[in-house]
Amino acid sequence: MTTLGDIGVAAAINIGSAFIFFLAFAILRLQPFNDRVYFPKWYLKGLRTDPVTGGVFVSKFINLDWRAYLGFLNWMPEALRMPEPELIDHAGLDSVVYLRIYLLGLKIFVPIAFLAWIVLVPVNWTSSGLEGAKNITSSDIDKLSVSNVHSRSERFWGHITMAYAFTFWVCYILLREYEKVASMRLDFLATEKRRPDQFTVLVRNIPPDPDESVSELVEHFFMVNHPDHYLTHQVIYDANTLAKLVKKKKKLQNWLVYYRNKLERTSKRPEMKTGFLGLWGKKVDAIDYHTTEIEKLSEEIASERKKVTDDSKCVMPAAFVSFKTRWGAAVCAQTQQSSNPTLWLTEWAPEPRDVYWRNLPIPYISLTVRRLIMAVAFFFLTFFFMIPIAFVQTLASIEGIEKVAPWLKPLISVPFIKSFIQGFLPGIALKLFLIFLPTILMIMSKFEGFVSISSLERRSASRYYLFNFVNIFLGNVLAGSALQQLNTFINEPANQYPIIIGTAIPLKASFFITYIMVDGWASIAAEILMLKPLIFYHIKNFFLVKTEKDREEAMDPGSIGFNTGEPRIQLYFLLGLVYAAVTPAVLPFIIIFFGLAYVVFRHQIINVYNQEYESGAQFWPDVHGRIVIALILSQIVLIGLLTTKKAASSTPFLIVLPILTISFHRYCKGRYEPAFVKFPLQEAMMKDTLEKATEPNLNLKGYLHNAYIHPVFKDSMDDEDVDDDTLSNSWETETVRTKRHSQRHTPLPSRISGASSPPPSLMAGDGIQNEP
Amino acid sequence: MTTLGDIGVAAAINIGSAFIFFLAFAILRLQPFNDRVYFPKWYLKGLRTDPVTGGVFVSKFINLDWRAYLGFLNWMPEALRMPEPELIDHAGLDSVVYLRIYLLGLKIFVPIAFLAWIVLVPVNWTSSGLEGAKNITSSDIDKLSVSNVHSRSERFWGHITMAYAFTFWVCYILLREYEKVASMRLDFLATEKRRPDQFTVLVRNIPPDPDESVSELVEHFFMVNHPDHYLTHQVIYDANTLAKLVKKKKKLQNWLVYYRNKLERTSKRPEMKTGFLGLWGKKVDAIDYHTTEIEKLSEEIASERKKVTDDSKCVMPAAFVSFKTRWGAAVCAQTQQSSNPTLWLTEWAPEPRDVYWRNLPIPYISLTVRRLIMAVAFFFLTFFFMIPIAFVQTLASIEGIEKVAPWLKPLISVPFIKSFIQGFLPGIALKLFLIFLPTILMIMSKFEGFVSISSLERRSASRYYLFNFVNIFLGNVLAGSALQQLNTFINEPANQYPIIIGTAIPLKASFFITYIMVDGWASIAAEILMLKPLIFYHIKNFFLVKTEKDREEAMDPGSIGFNTGEPRIQLYFLLGLVYAAVTPAVLPFIIIFFGLAYVVFRHQIINVYNQEYESGAQFWPDVHGRIVIALILSQIVLIGLLTTKKAASSTPFLIVLPILTISFHRYCKGRYEPAFVKFPLQEAMMKDTLEKATEPNLNLKGYLHNAYIHPVFKDSMDDEDVDDDTLSNSWETETVRTKRHSQRHTPLPSRISGASSPPPSLMAGDGIQNEP
Repeated sequence: MTTLGDIGVAAAINIGSAFIFFLAFAILRLQPFNDRVYFPKWYLKGLRTDPVTGGVFVSKFINLDWRAYLGFLNWMPEALRMPEPELIDHAGLDSVVYLRIYLLGLKIFVPIAFLAWIVLVPVNWTSSGLEGAKNITSSDIDKLSVSNVHSRSERFWGHITMAYAFTFWVCYILLREYEKVASMRLDFLATEKRRPDQFTVLVRNIPPDPDESVSELVEHFFMVNHPDHYLTHQVIYDANTLAKLVKKKKKLQNWLVYYRNKLERTSKRPEMKTGFLGLWGKKVDAIDYHTTEIEKLSEEIASERKKVTDDSKCVMPAAFVSFKTRWGAAVCAQTQQSSNPTLWLTEWAPEPRDVYWRNLPIPYISLTVRRLIMAVAFFFLTFFFMIPIAFVQTLASIEGIEKVAPWLKPLISVPFIKSFIQGFLPGIALKLFLIFLPTILMIMSKFEGFVSISSLERRSASRYYLFNFVNIFLGNVLAGSALQQLNTFINEPANQYPIIIGTAIPLKASFFITYIMVDGWASIAAEILMLKPLIFYHIKNFFLVKTEKDREEAMDPGSIGFNTGEPRIQLYFLLGLVYAAVTPAVLPFIIIFFGLAYVVFRHQIINVYNQEYESGAQFWPDVHGRIVIALILSQIVLIGLLTTKKAASSTPFLIVLPILTISFHRYCKGRYEPAFVKFPLQEAMMKDTLEKATEPNLNLKGYLHNAYIHPVFKDSMDDEDVDDDTLSNSWETETVRTKRHSQRHTPLPSRISGASSPPPSLMAGDGIQNEP
Repeated sequence: MTTLGDIGVAAAINIGSAFIFFLAFAILRLQPFNDRVYFPKWYLKGLRTDPVTGGVFVSKFINLDWRAYLGFLNWMPEALRMPEPELIDHAGLDSVVYLRIYLLGLKIFVPIAFLAWIVLVPVNWTSSGLEGAKNITSSDIDKLSVSNVHSRSERFWGHITMAYAFTFWVCYILLREYEKVASMRLDFLATEKRRPDQFTVLVRNIPPDPDESVSELVEHFFMVNHPDHYLTHQVIYDANTLAKLVKKKKKLQNWLVYYRNKLERTSKRPEMKTGFLGLWGKKVDAIDYHTTEIEKLSEEIASERKKVTDDSKCVMPAAFVSFKTRWGAAVCAQTQQSSNPTLWLTEWAPEPRDVYWRNLPIPYISLTVRRLIMAVAFFFLTFFFMIPIAFVQTLASIEGIEKVAPWLKPLISVPFIKSFIQGFLPGIALKLFLIFLPTILMIMSKFEGFVSISSLERRSASRYYLFNFVNIFLGNVLAGSALQQLNTFINEPANQYPIIIGTAIPLKASFFITYIMVDGWASIAAEILMLKPLIFYHIKNFFLVKTEKDREEAMDPGSIGFNTGEPRIQLYFLLGLVYAAVTPAVLPFIIIFFGLAYVVFRHQIINVYNQEYESGAQFWPDVHGRIVIALILSQIVLIGLLTTKKAASSTPFLIVLPILTISFHRYCKGRYEPAFVKFPLQEAMMKDTLEKATEPNLNLKGYLHNAYIHPVFKDSMDDEDVDDDTLSNSWETETVRTKRHSQRHTPLPSRISGASSPPPSLMAGDGIQNEP
């Protein structure tokens, strides 16, 4: 059992290490050569260039101004200074609302902690329920918790009253927050500039027609059924092969630039070997070789592109259909088109950056099957993931290695290696799994067929939350693998569930305090140091960066990562709410977590993260829903706990709480959720009318013409001057107003640029994010 | 334990009594004086008049033609003769699809019974599992059931295979049926004539505005947000007081007519007493008295009407908004209007007959609260309904009566009355509750705030199904009150549930066979005899009928009664599916039920029932869903049963079935359910275009002008010639084309008449149906 002293020591260690992280960050961020690591957002926005090169050579790399080091925590107030509206402009609504989750944590837990420490801690502390119990060694923490209250004590009325107070407070704050976020979203949608997705609807499952091409079919269908509103449409090509070729060509062009630079510097024609990684093979002139290779590829690309656009098999049964007004698009997105509800499925087109192109052509029936498969797979992943890991762990043991690879025997008998294998390898298998888990979940979501990156992330987040709930929360509370828990729950009566969890909860308080410090505090402190991007940037800069363009690509700003970040926060909401009435000692640690995280993530969002898409805070209903789940769970746990305390007569008073909470949730769902799913016609009409008045001669068709082109076509248009085929005519770039270079590499938030260019780095490449 | 012989005897008795019912029906229906009881539908349609009065006087009442009695079962082929399309014309789509539920029962169970008797019965019969068991007295029925198979027997593979076969067959038939019903609905909607509800949307929660009246507000809102489509609107008045006055006046007018007739016949001015029921009070001249009373009431009505139309407080924040095209209405009904999703709620207007006027003005937040209250109330109703009944039962016992009313002691000591109280009263309390249960559930649904009668009935049906499931199915299987079961389930581990039910199921087979015969067969035979309407009609005819109009009102055709009928059918689906693999001996009895019910209800729908509304088979998703639930339950029961039979290794094979069934259900839901909720734009556009071509000069505004008037205004317009105020101008009756008399009293299915008159008998009066 942990004493208060133990926890104090752990806290001191964790605070110390966090302090060291912050110190390191404060020093590193001031060095000019790290500028692109700690301020990439500003580079991406084109508002910052590489540090000026006046003065001493060394100051190009190291900041010699000692005064800069004095206020080493200055970044904190700086991070808090930017007002919310400006932050929305700077980083988009998604980021701002994401920050509000942390703020919400503070709003919920600060008053709760205050109340709990005023009321519950004295009530618990002055009891003596644990003194009588001899077989349990109680810690100081337990003295602060409900465990210290005698069974059948009248003092439990305090806990019940507090449970009511906490529930009403949380619901009140949640309601206000939902209202606020909904109005922020509506304001955002109302004030934002013209965007292609406001006018565009994604149509899927277009039925095959023997007499008409997909394009003709779409045109006729919408001409007939939306005669006053239909404007134009964009068919979707299966351009995966083309995308690969273009990517390859781009790589070769980079090398060509590199060799040309080298020629200029050394005045000696560079040579290279044609074999693997340039290590062996025939020696050739590098520039000539690359030039011919690029020419060959260009021809291939041209023919592939011709094939894609000419061959009707490459046209997928899906299209982006644009309308003359926002009203027309809102109508089409919200209504059913055909009497067969699985054909002509319409939904709002995601923002161009947000489209996940590969999933567009999945037919309806396949979606049902895919969801079923993934539901089963996720069940097994959650409850049986330990089985393959245990298998790997036996393989990774000394005996396992000796068995599989006897020739390694001399090596692994070296004491150092032996102890490494014994101590590290088994843990690494589990650690690796947990690191790759978000990626696995993302792949699962992709398989399910969602068509936008934002919905993929939301789906992954739900699954990750469930996984965490089962394997971290329940796993630690009940101290067993998920499989064992499943077995426990199946074999116990339903009314025992709250009791099982309720009994274990207070005992685990000190464990979770440590967990909050190690996982929460430390990971946030590590987040700001950005160790991985820092190291990778310098490695790339040293070995690989050949051109200025490469340097830009070597930056790895990352993004918020809703699919991993949000479920983690939710775990702290869950812990906070569950322990609020049980062991209020947990609360201060959670408050520190939320406060620290708020500052750190605000800094990161301002200076580092690159915005991948803008969904307009569509994730809020999920966030809200999960906090409500945590609240209900906390109430059930309390019921179970008080039942074990023989205060069973309290159950009727407490059972009211979950019922009220559920109907609160249903009310919120009906009241606010539509604001995140639908687009009201009133708003659409208002914007349309305004636009008609201010810009009567707008060429909307031209504006929308190439908004939804597969990024590979757009990319190649930028790169090439060879274009002479039909493509360059059909996707003209007349509306791209920013200069080409920066447009290609800095995916500005579209509400600022007004342009509709998807960031090619996101769409066409970047491995894991895009390849299911 | 019941032997096959016992069941045979019970079957013989039930078949005999059914036969007697049918015989009685065959004789009674041929008597001319019963004509209005057994053929009211034809009277309502105006296709049949009272039997001609040629020949002997007595033949006006009794059919003396002996040949008519020979083919006394002739009505059966007659009932089956009318083809489906004609039946849709005659009785509406709802009725036809309702009949298909019985047909679905036959389609599902005939092949299943065939297969089960070929495969499972021999497997069970040739086993000898029950011979060894000594403590159980086994019946012959049990020998046919799975109970007779040895534990751990390989023969269970037969049952598992059959479970797969049954599941696939049920799903296949369900899928085909869903498809068929969906296409029937779409055909129905596509071919039906112009109806006001095709153009009209119900708008609720119109926000209050200090500067504008509701009517102005609605007009401005839709003028702005649906400029090309908005046509007109109809505000909704709170006219409950007015309705009462009008009803009272109508009654007095009936009496006036009666007394005038009397005067004509007797040439003596009739007198009456003014007191209660004419039993005491001052004697006055009846005709003069009624004339003055009617005049007084007319004045009151006129002033009340003026008040309703002039006073803005009587205008409810809801309106029926009509559009120029079906397309416009479809768009408005399916989209969100305002950025506050609880304001300007739009949904398809129900058919005028179908509107439940009282619920129109309920605000959104109140709906949430009402649903919560009703959910809690229904929970208590289901699980605790025995408590008040038990209380009444103690009161209704000899001791209870002696205690409460000691002066009755001499009366209840009479042996006959004593035995009556002891034997009957306690049962009557329960029986009365069960008789009033559908009404109670209907009142609960009304309280919840649904705005159409069809949705009220669907909601009541779901609840009634749940109640039946808990109190009839589980109640009899587990032999205990719902409260005891609840306790059992809470105190048992989740994996014990299937085992508890699975163990009990085979033992209850003979009970349910008897139940099917007594409840199913007998109630259907009683249905066709229409004993209650028969008796009531003759009583009314004898005592109360004063005018021809009264005779029409004395008819009580009744209606299908979806809210009571469908849940009962579902119980048989449940029994059939659960026993299919366990005790196939149950199946023939269920098949007879479905067959008989199909013929009887087809006859009733053709000749008797009056169609109250037309929802276009909107109830089908509910029907489908409940059969799927029954299927899943049958699979779970089988898992539990085989587990007790030590065939636990079968569980993995069987657990696949519910998973497949659930995903089958989800597929069906996605594929077909929208057809029952939404109206595709393609269809709307097609009908609009067609109409524009065929009737270019249609005065739609005139057509829609008074389609959605509160029935009380329409009624009074028919009745009065006194109208001289603004009302007669605003609700002109230019579109009512049928003759007034028949229009008021025979609510024709609107697709035939094309008129939009709600049946006043349904809307304004008829006690329990309309008063929550």
